[in-house]
Amino acid sequence: MNIYFACSITGGREFESVYQAIVHALVEQGHEVPTAHLAESGVGVVEAVIHPNEVYERDVAWIRACDVLIAEVSVPSHGVGYEIGFALGLGKPVLALYQEGCKVSKMISGNPDSNLTVSLYRTPDDAIQIIGDFLSKAW
Amino acid sequence: MNIYFACSITGGREFESVYQAIVHALVEQGHEVPTAHLAESGVGVVEAVIHPNEVYERDVAWIRACDVLIAEVSVPSHGVGYEIGFALGLGKPVLALYQEGCKVSKMISGNPDSNLTVSLYRTPDDAIQIIGDFLSKAW
Repeated sequence: MNIYFACSITGGREFESVYQAIVHALVEQGHEVPTAHLAESGVGVVEAVIHPNEVYERDVAWIRACDVLIAEVSVPSHGVGYEIGFALGLGKPVLALYQEGCKVSKMISGNPDSNLTVSLYRTPDDAIQIIGDFLSKAW
Repeated sequence: MNIYFACSITGGREFESVYQAIVHALVEQGHEVPTAHLAESGVGVVEAVIHPNEVYERDVAWIRACDVLIAEVSVPSHGVGYEIGFALGLGKPVLALYQEGCKVSKMISGNPDSNLTVSLYRTPDDAIQIIGDFLSKAW
């Protein structure tokens, strides 16, 4: 499957190790993850040299092409919030994951869109298990 | 005019005094601001007791009814990112304001939508001046 993985870049990288665990698991399972590099360390520096409009057009094209969008929403991010809304607007299945104890915006936790699943996880392995269940239902 | 003012609630309240300066100015100028209470101190506690879906449905209805959306984007927020995307999807004029020195997601700064204006401000008075210019052009 083609999976758009959405995570905070400008908003904060406290959950970078979780992003990496998720992306590595997805790639190992044979999925295509065009945003895989966004989970890597130092991505802020790499992305900073690309023109903002180029990043926008690239990410929007990837969302249009994806089968599902998986977002890690433990850390607030304008970009991830925008991407979730954009993907739902296109009718894509979306999974929003957050670590237990993190607060999630009510624009996400209260969104009744039947294509949106919001789940909490305790460990990265737990998150990967939840993603597996989501993908088996979404496809 | 009916103005939806979008600001971070769950994401962080470091810019609360700016939110208040903006909302007070808009209300003094005679505009209708359904989200005015979201700029006030202690809003997190007030909103916490409302069911997430109720907040979502209320905010989405307000965006549908507004003439323009003005977002303060200095602090990352999933909700504000979602709201900007939702308003642009409806063809509403959107102004995204951030304080000089703050980093803005490229999904906002790089968004080529002709209805979106992204501006930096130095002081709350500066922000209010920029809003005045935006409103005079948007209407």
